[in-house]
Amino acid sequence: MRAELITIGDEILIGQIIDTNSAWMGRELENIGVKIRQITSISDSKPEILKTLREAENRADIILITGGLGPTRDDITKGTLAEYFGVGLKIDSAALENVVAIFNRFSMPLLEVNKKQAEVPENCIPIQNSKGTAPGMWFEERGKIFVSMPGVPHEMMAMMQDFVIPRILETGKLPSIVHQTLLTAGLGESFLAKKLEEIENQLPSNIKLAYLPKLGQVRLRLSGMGPVKSDLEREVEEQKQKIIQCIPEYIVWIGDGTLSQAILEKLKSSSKTLATAESCTGGYIAKEITSIPGSSQVYLGGVVPYSNTLKTRLLGVKEGTLNQYGAVSEETVREMVQGIHEHLGADFGIATSGIAGPDGGSPDKPVGLVWVAWGNRNRIEAKKFQFGKDRLVNIERSATVALTHLLSFIKEEE
Amino acid sequence: MRAELITIGDEILIGQIIDTNSAWMGRELENIGVKIRQITSISDSKPEILKTLREAENRADIILITGGLGPTRDDITKGTLAEYFGVGLKIDSAALENVVAIFNRFSMPLLEVNKKQAEVPENCIPIQNSKGTAPGMWFEERGKIFVSMPGVPHEMMAMMQDFVIPRILETGKLPSIVHQTLLTAGLGESFLAKKLEEIENQLPSNIKLAYLPKLGQVRLRLSGMGPVKSDLEREVEEQKQKIIQCIPEYIVWIGDGTLSQAILEKLKSSSKTLATAESCTGGYIAKEITSIPGSSQVYLGGVVPYSNTLKTRLLGVKEGTLNQYGAVSEETVREMVQGIHEHLGADFGIATSGIAGPDGGSPDKPVGLVWVAWGNRNRIEAKKFQFGKDRLVNIERSATVALTHLLSFIKEEE
Repeated sequence: MRAELITIGDEILIGQIIDTNSAWMGRELENIGVKIRQITSISDSKPEILKTLREAENRADIILITGGLGPTRDDITKGTLAEYFGVGLKIDSAALENVVAIFNRFSMPLLEVNKKQAEVPENCIPIQNSKGTAPGMWFEERGKIFVSMPGVPHEMMAMMQDFVIPRILETGKLPSIVHQTLLTAGLGESFLAKKLEEIENQLPSNIKLAYLPKLGQVRLRLSGMGPVKSDLEREVEEQKQKIIQCIPEYIVWIGDGTLSQAILEKLKSSSKTLATAESCTGGYIAKEITSIPGSSQVYLGGVVPYSNTLKTRLLGVKEGTLNQYGAVSEETVREMVQGIHEHLGADFGIATSGIAGPDGGSPDKPVGLVWVAWGNRNRIEAKKFQFGKDRLVNIERSATVALTHLLSFIKEEE
Repeated sequence: MRAELITIGDEILIGQIIDTNSAWMGRELENIGVKIRQITSISDSKPEILKTLREAENRADIILITGGLGPTRDDITKGTLAEYFGVGLKIDSAALENVVAIFNRFSMPLLEVNKKQAEVPENCIPIQNSKGTAPGMWFEERGKIFVSMPGVPHEMMAMMQDFVIPRILETGKLPSIVHQTLLTAGLGESFLAKKLEEIENQLPSNIKLAYLPKLGQVRLRLSGMGPVKSDLEREVEEQKQKIIQCIPEYIVWIGDGTLSQAILEKLKSSSKTLATAESCTGGYIAKEITSIPGSSQVYLGGVVPYSNTLKTRLLGVKEGTLNQYGAVSEETVREMVQGIHEHLGADFGIATSGIAGPDGGSPDKPVGLVWVAWGNRNRIEAKKFQFGKDRLVNIERSATVALTHLLSFIKEEE
């Protein structure tokens, strides 16, 4: 089955918001074997929506539409869908009850525009919105499936998980699909591709290898599609093992997880704890780790000692060290990791200190210079990196190298 | 002038990466008065690319393409563009020099596939890539402009800023455009729209008002377009003042900035310092603040005391308080802010403690319960929030309410 996604709303076109919905939906659909053919973002304009629906209907089996279901005047998706199918609008009583309940819960007066949120085209099956007021809509017309959902990510996600995905699976038209993922670090995309050339050339035609580069990491993904799931699983596993044997030194994790998830799993299984001391990464690593449910079982917490005073006060970095070598130095990051053991009481730690930019560099210590240290109570390692001038890129790269080295260290210590 | 964006690459369709490029490009183009008509994401497939180019050429004056310029076999944009224009490929010597220089800098052997990155269609003006190996391309054909750039965000951004935007401006075909932005918090989109209904109805036809809701905040954006810039500026300013007078209590910032930027500017101008103590937000607020260049002038740093031990050790939260009231309580977050003053030495502070979920709730303290406190050395305020079950949403909402209340507090103290 082939799908197209249509996102409606000027706010995406003028860049006020980033379209995170499409990536999430793409992943969910890909996982059940639905192939996304095209993603189209258009404005809240009736002729544009009608044209795009027509084009998508010609190419795809499933058309998923997000956005334009809000209460304000620029939200015209519902009326346009009714026109597209040549039907009128009706009030859906379950949706109206939901709207009333939400407004009551927050003790807010119900406006006329809010009641209109319970209106849906007559030919649709309404999809209950468990996270907000606007109902979703499921249409089956001319042999195609059309789904319209709100653009608010967590509302759309709940509808997809509770209603849309199960209902697509019920059509029984999907092949089996198997994915396997490997996370690599330390080698660029073209060098990995060179090393894996022979394996890639010999891949069976129903299995594909994709490279997903991200600052300092490349995720490798094998996807197989076919009629018999167990055969597929064996075939994809075989290819995965070939890749692992070909580039063992660059594989940092086998599976879907992020670096942070990998670290948390490793430490949890050995009942060890982790803390962070981030100067130049400013909380980025802490945020990554704590975004993972259950991280509190391993992660004791961290400090963001942006000022030198706090490096001393929170971690016991010696003033002499800061004066003699500076905050961005091997000596300082090593003492920061020591401080994690002594002051924060964690078994494992990571520390970062650098000049993230765009200003603040000197000839000796240019923008982009970053020192990272990691270790446990027995052993601390440190490494210098020279990144570029972009602040956000430097923060993200620093976090990635810090997490990569910590994960390797944990594996060595096992 | 009307533009369309085309992003090429399976990794967007299968949701391996989020298309952040389009939003950034949309913003940059909108700012110079180029209207984006459509954004289309398609796979690395020659027929799809050719079809999409043809359709976009029919609708738009400028077609900007990202992606598919990498060294691996699935990158086919360049060959397809050459076919589209009916020309061959040539080696661009400046691009080749750039590739060689980059490989030398990293002491990496130059592969044949890497040399091919210096190839471009014969009819293009190559765009130098200051951040990577693949050159961009500028085409002027049949009265339309086509631009092809790498999908790597910082490479694309540098090309846009250094080459593409200036060159589009040189065409002299753009109207004047004026934007004004207001950040509001505390009232939902439909209620704001209701309050602003009359102003919106009376807007001149060349000025538009857009609502951009984000968890707990709505950004209002007035955009005017017209021939004479100074007239426009006056007109948009007039409308902005009307809005401010209509909803003064919900305006938290006048201008483009984020909440964090607003707080940093306010505190910098009064030479005050800031620190954070984040339990449930886990570094999210620190990361937001430190992503802003120059934040170190105001932000001393923060702690992420995930465990109770660290709340006591780093901030001096009393064990008795934690035992009697629990970590998620008014008493604890108030002591966390006190700890910011006493242990971290900052003038202003924010503290968060809550149950982010999805697990860890109890009947007394359900998932989504969050206590936030903020204040300076004279006065500390605290407030309880009950959010939902989604961990990432809860973290983001908690950060937003904490920053919103701190900003209001700073304004009150002025």
